[in-house]
Amino acid sequence: MSAEQQIIKLGLDLPEVPSPSGNYVPSVQTGNLLFLSGKGPVGLPVGKVGGDTSVEEAYQHARSIGLTLLSVMRDSLGSLDRVERVVKVLGMVNAAPDFGQHPAVINGCSDLFIEVFGESGRHARSAVGMGSLPNAMTVEIECIVEVKSD
Amino acid sequence: MSAEQQIIKLGLDLPEVPSPSGNYVPSVQTGNLLFLSGKGPVGLPVGKVGGDTSVEEAYQHARSIGLTLLSVMRDSLGSLDRVERVVKVLGMVNAAPDFGQHPAVINGCSDLFIEVFGESGRHARSAVGMGSLPNAMTVEIECIVEVKSD
Amino acid sequence: MSAEQQIIKLGLDLPEVPSPSGNYVPSVQTGNLLFLSGKGPVGLPVGKVGGDTSVEEAYQHARSIGLTLLSVMRDSLGSLDRVERVVKVLGMVNAAPDFGQHPAVINGCSDLFIEVFGESGRHARSAVGMGSLPNAMTVEIECIVEVKSD
Repeated sequence: MSAEQQIIKLGLDLPEVPSPSGNYVPSVQTGNLLFLSGKGPVGLPVGKVGGDTSVEEAYQHARSIGLTLLSVMRDSLGSLDRVERVVKVLGMVNAAPDFGQHPAVINGCSDLFIEVFGESGRHARSAVGMGSLPNAMTVEIECIVEVKSD
Repeated sequence: MSAEQQIIKLGLDLPEVPSPSGNYVPSVQTGNLLFLSGKGPVGLPVGKVGGDTSVEEAYQHARSIGLTLLSVMRDSLGSLDRVERVVKVLGMVNAAPDFGQHPAVINGCSDLFIEVFGESGRHARSAVGMGSLPNAMTVEIECIVEVKSD
Repeated sequence: MSAEQQIIKLGLDLPEVPSPSGNYVPSVQTGNLLFLSGKGPVGLPVGKVGGDTSVEEAYQHARSIGLTLLSVMRDSLGSLDRVERVVKVLGMVNAAPDFGQHPAVINGCSDLFIEVFGESGRHARSAVGMGSLPNAMTVEIECIVEVKSD
């Protein structure tokens, strides 16, 4: 089943690509690699994970970022079916200084990519804790995908 | 107008490439991609943005990093005119834990790249907050550029 | 002398590749680039560098991460002799907010790469301070390597 068919089957609703908050663009393709800018969760929830925001809430935030990143991919490539492979994810959690469950948070995005792309959704990843994030949002994720040659 | 002509027209003075502060090199090219090491502002200003350093000051620091990154590109490639495209910027702000205006800071570098390269200067980007940075400097930025095939 | 010969000559013992702590894989190759997931030190030492963990201890942690990254490269490519070049390292230190010696910490990994690969081990790098890391570990490092074409 193709990624676009999977989106329909799962009943996923991709959000609009948000306007960049600074002087940059949502993605740049070079050769077969598409570099996506870091995105925050839909609705820009504010908080420190491990403080006023739970791991379960932050998992959902990471999933909502995943939907936005899918939307950027579709916008840039015309169709999610042009994604050959998710290559690399950098998951950045706005966390309390003693927080340690970053992987469980960023799984919200990783699980979604694997639901949509299957084995081609499996990626290399780092999931780490930032000191702060734009607008004090809880999570930000950027990624690199490989584009089909066609 | 070429990037090198633009540098002259804007009256920009590129700083010398600083010596790496550790066991690494300023940039590595692989295929058509040039990966640049993270750099700090000229003069290595110390502080926490949103604490003792204002957004306006940090914007200027990010701009000065941009000048250094241009200098690294020229040094590595022989001329800025060999840059096909700025692909990706990772802007890292040494910020207070409740800081939220990272995009406004990193625009200092992004604006410069667009002044110099025009549309080819537009890049994917993340602008985020670190817990600390080398020498307690205020901002660090790394980037990836695509090199012309020639 | 090849990298694999160098491993023997230096008497280095590569650890097993640890299971990913989330829904991701240790590395993904796209074209000639191998992207490696972020890894922590063997034994997952806990602490804040510049707080309860010294620069010297953290240097050894970074070196032990380097050994794990070498192990991931060998596992992915069949042999370290298929590495053409270490391209980029992102060294992330779980540091106290006023810490400033990140480069001295991440040299633990960089020095190792140069011992093993010689000039081909020299890489672009950023060494920065995170607000927190998974399991409260002291250091995390990810990297990108270029793979030989053959």
